[in-house]
Amino acid sequence: MSSLDSKWMWLVEWRTKRDAHIWLIDELLLSTRTKYQKVELLKTAGGLRLVLDGKTQSTEEDEWIYHEALVHPAMVLHEKPEDVLIIGGGEGATLREVLKHTTVRRVVMVDIDGELIEIAKRHLVKWHKGSFEDPRVKLVISDGRKFIEREESDTYDVIIMDLTDPTKDSPSRYLYTLEFYKEVKRVLKPRGIMVTQAASPYYAGKVSARIYFTLKSVFKVVRFYMAYVPQFLAPWGFAISSEGPDPLTLSKDEVDKRLKIRLKGKLKYYDGETHEGIFKLPKYVREELGEEIPPSTDEDPVYLPV
Amino acid sequence: MSSLDSKWMWLVEWRTKRDAHIWLIDELLLSTRTKYQKVELLKTAGGLRLVLDGKTQSTEEDEWIYHEALVHPAMVLHEKPEDVLIIGGGEGATLREVLKHTTVRRVVMVDIDGELIEIAKRHLVKWHKGSFEDPRVKLVISDGRKFIEREESDTYDVIIMDLTDPTKDSPSRYLYTLEFYKEVKRVLKPRGIMVTQAASPYYAGKVSARIYFTLKSVFKVVRFYMAYVPQFLAPWGFAISSEGPDPLTLSKDEVDKRLKIRLKGKLKYYDGETHEGIFKLPKYVREELGEEIPPSTDEDPVYLPV
Amino acid sequence: MSSLDSKWMWLVEWRTKRDAHIWLIDELLLSTRTKYQKVELLKTAGGLRLVLDGKTQSTEEDEWIYHEALVHPAMVLHEKPEDVLIIGGGEGATLREVLKHTTVRRVVMVDIDGELIEIAKRHLVKWHKGSFEDPRVKLVISDGRKFIEREESDTYDVIIMDLTDPTKDSPSRYLYTLEFYKEVKRVLKPRGIMVTQAASPYYAGKVSARIYFTLKSVFKVVRFYMAYVPQFLAPWGFAISSEGPDPLTLSKDEVDKRLKIRLKGKLKYYDGETHEGIFKLPKYVREELGEEIPPSTDEDPVYLPV
Amino acid sequence: MSSLDSKWMWLVEWRTKRDAHIWLIDELLLSTRTKYQKVELLKTAGGLRLVLDGKTQSTEEDEWIYHEALVHPAMVLHEKPEDVLIIGGGEGATLREVLKHTTVRRVVMVDIDGELIEIAKRHLVKWHKGSFEDPRVKLVISDGRKFIEREESDTYDVIIMDLTDPTKDSPSRYLYTLEFYKEVKRVLKPRGIMVTQAASPYYAGKVSARIYFTLKSVFKVVRFYMAYVPQFLAPWGFAISSEGPDPLTLSKDEVDKRLKIRLKGKLKYYDGETHEGIFKLPKYVREELGEEIPPSTDEDPVYLPV
Repeated sequence: MSSLDSKWMWLVEWRTKRDAHIWLIDELLLSTRTKYQKVELLKTAGGLRLVLDGKTQSTEEDEWIYHEALVHPAMVLHEKPEDVLIIGGGEGATLREVLKHTTVRRVVMVDIDGELIEIAKRHLVKWHKGSFEDPRVKLVISDGRKFIEREESDTYDVIIMDLTDPTKDSPSRYLYTLEFYKEVKRVLKPRGIMVTQAASPYYAGKVSARIYFTLKSVFKVVRFYMAYVPQFLAPWGFAISSEGPDPLTLSKDEVDKRLKIRLKGKLKYYDGETHEGIFKLPKYVREELGEEIPPSTDEDPVYLPV
Repeated sequence: MSSLDSKWMWLVEWRTKRDAHIWLIDELLLSTRTKYQKVELLKTAGGLRLVLDGKTQSTEEDEWIYHEALVHPAMVLHEKPEDVLIIGGGEGATLREVLKHTTVRRVVMVDIDGELIEIAKRHLVKWHKGSFEDPRVKLVISDGRKFIEREESDTYDVIIMDLTDPTKDSPSRYLYTLEFYKEVKRVLKPRGIMVTQAASPYYAGKVSARIYFTLKSVFKVVRFYMAYVPQFLAPWGFAISSEGPDPLTLSKDEVDKRLKIRLKGKLKYYDGETHEGIFKLPKYVREELGEEIPPSTDEDPVYLPV
Repeated sequence: MSSLDSKWMWLVEWRTKRDAHIWLIDELLLSTRTKYQKVELLKTAGGLRLVLDGKTQSTEEDEWIYHEALVHPAMVLHEKPEDVLIIGGGEGATLREVLKHTTVRRVVMVDIDGELIEIAKRHLVKWHKGSFEDPRVKLVISDGRKFIEREESDTYDVIIMDLTDPTKDSPSRYLYTLEFYKEVKRVLKPRGIMVTQAASPYYAGKVSARIYFTLKSVFKVVRFYMAYVPQFLAPWGFAISSEGPDPLTLSKDEVDKRLKIRLKGKLKYYDGETHEGIFKLPKYVREELGEEIPPSTDEDPVYLPV
Repeated sequence: MSSLDSKWMWLVEWRTKRDAHIWLIDELLLSTRTKYQKVELLKTAGGLRLVLDGKTQSTEEDEWIYHEALVHPAMVLHEKPEDVLIIGGGEGATLREVLKHTTVRRVVMVDIDGELIEIAKRHLVKWHKGSFEDPRVKLVISDGRKFIEREESDTYDVIIMDLTDPTKDSPSRYLYTLEFYKEVKRVLKPRGIMVTQAASPYYAGKVSARIYFTLKSVFKVVRFYMAYVPQFLAPWGFAISSEGPDPLTLSKDEVDKRLKIRLKGKLKYYDGETHEGIFKLPKYVREELGEEIPPSTDEDPVYLPV
């Protein structure tokens, strides 16, 4: 008998009000509610899947695409990343990728949802691979915005924002605003690099363009790039910002050289050629990102329309 | 009342046996069966949608991504494309893009399904924009394989394969084999360029890799590239082949210069920077394409497992 | 390959906003719009299916349950039904059942949608079985309400209302009101019988109860009965009304005797024992039907909430 | 925002391979696996829903229809039911209905799945309403077949089979066979009554007809009856068997009189008129039940094809 006969629950992710992707749930491993969100662990096509408030965050089979794309361009761009801050990233996979860089002496990971971290520690071993136990790691359960506001200036070499998408009621909304980005710039060292996930440009509502435009109001160099993540069905957007270092000036060979010297462990997605490709966007995406849009502010923060 | 209450038919496209994308059908404009395939014209999110045998071929809102990506890299790579052959491409959009090149003197378009062409002429004006009436165009209703076998050698500057994916029972299966590609090479002029759609590398069954490997058994230069098409939910694969010209040696500036000189009409997807980006694949895609696979032959042709 | 792989369109019928029944469309035979409604003919589980404005009207495999249940209790209850009026019933199956009664000399069938009748004549032969050609039949394309208002008093022995459910914008809404039922009573002969489909008591909104209550404001005898129709997923409601004859006084044996004498052709659903069963409703249904509800009037007509 | 936007999991119950009913899961209260089956408690349209191995067993809003229909016809038919045996019935609702009969001195309830009973005790209070605590009740965790085989002859007045449908791999298959029914007859007192759920006659595979026919090979009197349960989308089948008492000889008034004398608590579904209606089946159902089919035996037990 086919799996369609023996299984009975489906995950439905709406893309618009008139189309959705549906996933047969082979196994429901966990369904719980933390103080901040509904958490589900499901087995589907794509393997184990972490779902927060009904939105797939990552799946076993391709989480490495997202996490390598988020972490390595920024880490490699820095000449010697020693002090790293991660905001969000509950699964521990961003942490895993950061720790592959042997230059790193200290990683502070700040996540608002301590219960989610406990779930990840226990159930998402394939994601974090024990990274939470690395002696270089300091885990802080706190609101990311408040944490950064209390940090001293010139503290971090690289800051990585691994957040849920901003939605109307999510606390993460205030981690995509002008005011917040100014705080990020303050706690970065002068040659520091910040990278944030920036939603998908293929979503409604120009969320990516607005995040990009907001960053450009704060940082000298801002570069948008994309990586296709199969389980998201769309290229995902990221933005690197700094007061100096520019990923466009980093050649393929320089990327490969830095990776060779610094990296412990292998990468599957990122290398010099990948680096060159991800910053070269199709013409219409460049044009959309070039439009003038009001920046996202604490008073009028960007959020997904759905 | 919301659209969910007033509408009642959905298009379901299975990606695997355990996940699918579903589209609310706002309007069903046409549902018919030609000698070769089931043809449906639907209005859904994404606008008007052409569906052949249950598979979306293109939609009003993003067909230009696919068609620009298929046509222009090959056309621009040729120093002076005058004689062009299109196999397939029933919607007329590939033809539309080819005709934007002012160097073109003659386009032969060969499609097996004359009824589909008639449907396109009448209903897909947004696709072909009257291209079938251009005096440079010669339309031939014929099996593409047989047509090419009867053509004289050294006839075409550019040959564009705009085909449905090879499936177990489709006639298009024999337009992806070693034997066929040898015939293509024969009818190309010495500096000629061939491009084919090459399925999505994100589909099961290594179809893209096998097409790529088969082409490499026949042509000196073969380059695989990808363009993300939102309605397909995945980057789409293409392969350019030739006995000399190589898209990797074409600089961004040279692409933009050639477009400026030759092109009548505007492009939204393709330009010099897009050109540089699409050939730079992520590491794991390059590795998959590098595997040795038996070539697709008339005896053992490649086809999609689903 | 299973049908789930080769087929791609589904009919979705919402029961509430939170549950629906979905049917794989094996074949789409017709999809058109008449002046009054969207008409689709689909092949699904259940065979050929007539869908009006997204709502299944009847299917090949079980339409006889609905049509026998609608027609025969009223026809058998009349001592000698000669003049019969059908309002609605476009498929021709109600007509087919009426014509089985050899007492019938004349059937006037009034349907508002002439285009639908033409579609039925051509495509629904399994429903009408040529009944439109019977010399006793007079077909009138007209609004049922207007037709009845112009008819002379004391004209019909049996009047059968084979209507679509009343919805907010449907013209059929005014065929379920107090004012209309008074007109029906007027054109019925003194011993005449009227029967109407009365929606499903299992639908939201107490539509059945309100129709029943409205009839009781007009007729001396009103009896509600139900027949389960698999493709509707629920027992369907009907109501018989008269100024005298009462189906509850008709014994099983009398029903069987009348059928034996009068009927040409066989029945699959209805006989004496069925007759006795359909009027015996479960306790909670009787209680719901006993509630006092404002009658449906031209000013405030009953309609389905969805 | 509508519930369709904020919710993301759906329960899908296939009726055939080409149609299904889908329920939005508002809340997932429990998902676990006992030794015998997968157990889910969901909130959907219809309220709280108990799902075993993907099949809805009962819902808060209409479980009383099923349980009243199962229990009372048999209990009322007995002149003085004192010793009652229930096989299955994990929710405790069958028990609840039995205990309403003041004649009852002892109820033995035998269920194979002790973990399910514990779940029911804790989560299904709306079903059992504390019945497990009644001093007349003896709960036995055991295979029903083995239990009955060890019981002494002439022990029970009424035996109620509240089982899951027989499927290919379910242990309940051997509670629908000739051999089992002979054991049931043995442990019934001479005037005893047995009732079993008998699947829906609207399911594929003639399961109901075969259960009915098997019972007729063992008992003198066997009567099939049906009750429509909205959440099952179909009339449900039951069969009463005995060596003497016959529900068809019990008049409406006698049923109401016995209920009035014996019953503590109210009924919503069952009374004298309901009793008369449920045994009067439509003609085609009677004909299907009249067919000769090989009885279900331990060697060739009946089971649902899906």
